[in-house]
Amino acid sequence: MDKLRGFREFYPDEMRSRRVIFDASRKVSQLFGYEEISFPSVESLDLFRMKSGEEIVDQTYSFRDKGGREITLIPEATPSVSRMLAERKELPRPVRWFSFEKYWRYEEPQAGRAREFYQYNADLFGPYSEMADAEMIGLAGAILNELSLKGKYSFRVSHRGFIEKVLSKLGVSNPAAVLPVLDRYHKTTLETTVARLIETGVPEKSIDQLISILKEGSKLDKIEDLFADTGIDLTGIEEIGWLKRVGKLLESYSMKDIVFDASVVRGFTYYTGIVFEAFDLKGENRAILGGGRYDNLLSVISGNSIPAVGFAMGDVVLEIVMKSLNTWPEDDGAFTVTVCFTSGESSIYALDICNKLRKRGIPALISPETRSLSTQLKDASRHRSRFSVIVGDKEIAQKGATIRDMADGSQVTFPVLEAIKFLDKKRNITLLGQ
Amino acid sequence: MDKLRGFREFYPDEMRSRRVIFDASRKVSQLFGYEEISFPSVESLDLFRMKSGEEIVDQTYSFRDKGGREITLIPEATPSVSRMLAERKELPRPVRWFSFEKYWRYEEPQAGRAREFYQYNADLFGPYSEMADAEMIGLAGAILNELSLKGKYSFRVSHRGFIEKVLSKLGVSNPAAVLPVLDRYHKTTLETTVARLIETGVPEKSIDQLISILKEGSKLDKIEDLFADTGIDLTGIEEIGWLKRVGKLLESYSMKDIVFDASVVRGFTYYTGIVFEAFDLKGENRAILGGGRYDNLLSVISGNSIPAVGFAMGDVVLEIVMKSLNTWPEDDGAFTVTVCFTSGESSIYALDICNKLRKRGIPALISPETRSLSTQLKDASRHRSRFSVIVGDKEIAQKGATIRDMADGSQVTFPVLEAIKFLDKKRNITLLGQ
Repeated sequence: MDKLRGFREFYPDEMRSRRVIFDASRKVSQLFGYEEISFPSVESLDLFRMKSGEEIVDQTYSFRDKGGREITLIPEATPSVSRMLAERKELPRPVRWFSFEKYWRYEEPQAGRAREFYQYNADLFGPYSEMADAEMIGLAGAILNELSLKGKYSFRVSHRGFIEKVLSKLGVSNPAAVLPVLDRYHKTTLETTVARLIETGVPEKSIDQLISILKEGSKLDKIEDLFADTGIDLTGIEEIGWLKRVGKLLESYSMKDIVFDASVVRGFTYYTGIVFEAFDLKGENRAILGGGRYDNLLSVISGNSIPAVGFAMGDVVLEIVMKSLNTWPEDDGAFTVTVCFTSGESSIYALDICNKLRKRGIPALISPETRSLSTQLKDASRHRSRFSVIVGDKEIAQKGATIRDMADGSQVTFPVLEAIKFLDKKRNITLLGQ
Repeated sequence: MDKLRGFREFYPDEMRSRRVIFDASRKVSQLFGYEEISFPSVESLDLFRMKSGEEIVDQTYSFRDKGGREITLIPEATPSVSRMLAERKELPRPVRWFSFEKYWRYEEPQAGRAREFYQYNADLFGPYSEMADAEMIGLAGAILNELSLKGKYSFRVSHRGFIEKVLSKLGVSNPAAVLPVLDRYHKTTLETTVARLIETGVPEKSIDQLISILKEGSKLDKIEDLFADTGIDLTGIEEIGWLKRVGKLLESYSMKDIVFDASVVRGFTYYTGIVFEAFDLKGENRAILGGGRYDNLLSVISGNSIPAVGFAMGDVVLEIVMKSLNTWPEDDGAFTVTVCFTSGESSIYALDICNKLRKRGIPALISPETRSLSTQLKDASRHRSRFSVIVGDKEIAQKGATIRDMADGSQVTFPVLEAIKFLDKKRNITLLGQ
């Protein structure tokens, strides 16, 4: 009975790597004052319909439960997190939350897409400010740095309000219809983009200007130069100041060279302000993470408007990127000791030593069966134990324990307590990274 | 749009407590040499049908996906874990795995039962031995001890093979039919038990003997005395030696007074040997955890027989028990510093200090908006920051930072670097537990 297609299993080696990712994200979140929350993996389908419309239904694992309710496995975090906030109106703001949950999407599995994935999510509720936007991007960058990706990624930023105003200036009557075309700019041919822009209402005379912006991009502090070259008049578009101030604030987070990229749209319709994505510098992969400001979603869900900015980072693309950059953590596992015994009679004596080691905080294994010493030592190597403890009649007679260094096979016999102290010391040295 | 009935949300305070539980279980598992794995939350319904028969279907969140496949949210770990093992026949044994996943059951929500819950799961594959059984119970006990439950729980143990042989001696032709009646012994009246025993084929002359065993119980090392009083002849039932040896081995784990209790059956039909449960000593609640030996399940799933013993512990009963015993962790959260600024002009200066603190590993918060100092200090208190950093024109002029001890309101101004060093020292003292 195989696992389902698009689903993944993680054996210990793979899970250890993933645990490093989880722990690093958690640690950085806490450094920024974010607190962990958790929410149901199953929700009313209506919660997502409210936010994303009927089209979401096809992409979800949704079904009727035995009580006839239309429910779904959650495809993303934002509606649930927003609901949790709406239920606690009295919480002092700003509210800073993060979570690391599983999500499900009924999509065709392919590189970078699984049907079940882990996703980190962070949100800052309350403030409507450049500082809030910069904090969110700063947090995202700090997590990538903690994952040893420093210098290997770039952030691309845009602003929904800004782009919509620019499109209006270019004579577009329904800017929202054009956004998906911008989103596809890097993923399709120029020809297709032009055709789709015309279809969605961009006047032919404006096409060149728009393409030029899409093609060039600029550093955040140079946006005005980018537009000056195209002849588009930015008078009265205050969002440009917002974007530049966010760029300035990000210098405090040691994040420079943020790129303005009009093709950054993010799929979700609920974004209202800044939107951003991080890519690896080779640029061969999908976005590692993405997010933005969504100031109206809370009022859709709870009738109460609360400014919000957040981002999400899935484990599937992250793993591909980190592996391609050789930064995926390959952990050898914890320091362990294997306790071996040379006869059934010595097994209880060995088990006692094993439990004493555990009480000291030293991970210790023992064979649950009477097996030959050579088999037990082979197991110790397989489990990457740095040391083995060997006990037999001789050790029992002198209340001792023989320690074997698995690296060179050297052996020394100590009294039991000395042996435990010796191993404790060795473990502490290992913990200090030697 | 409310959350669904029987599902739970965890706000930061609640999640911090839960994180303590997760981390403690993980830490003890690693002490015992167990390695973490993870598996899909959605599986073919057939995987569970194979193991538990058709009746499982009603109790699961199962449905047809958009491709027509009968799938289900996983109701328990064992079939998935067994499948993972079967896929890696080459793994050196013993294999020691643990996991901490979410599970779902379509049951009526009630005290101790949620429709979605977290469950810790550990399994030891390979050995068929008393040492393996003792290790599993020892691991379970060590986790409860780590959760500050030492001395507050008891283990009750039985053995499927043993009970079935005893029932045969008592003249029962289909012992499996009687097991569910034993399971209900403590949950129903004596009258009902007697009636159901007769219905399921226990001869009337044997009823008193069986009830006497169920009523009395015994320490593991005194089982023979228990049976001697009833006149049941244990000749040829070797499992009694097995149980006594497990009891003896458990002394090495500092676990004494393990109780033999014939009413411990565990619902799952797949257990073949020892079965065990842990209860809080008040005994008012459901089992905190339960498990046992299941040597035939792997052959059902993979055609390959591999001895196995494991247990599972859900978070729902655990939380009830720990709260009733006042051992549920109430964590005040991490050491944090809030950086406050007295004007918009000082915000970047403040943000720089905030980011310097984070680089040092000190969790630091800053208001994402220009607000009054008193509001920012109120926020610092709400977030339980031990110290605040206050900066304004005076501090900028002298390249300094004022540190406020939130406990007594005392303030000192330092050069920035000194201020950061001071806070770093304070944090390290806090980490050391003062």
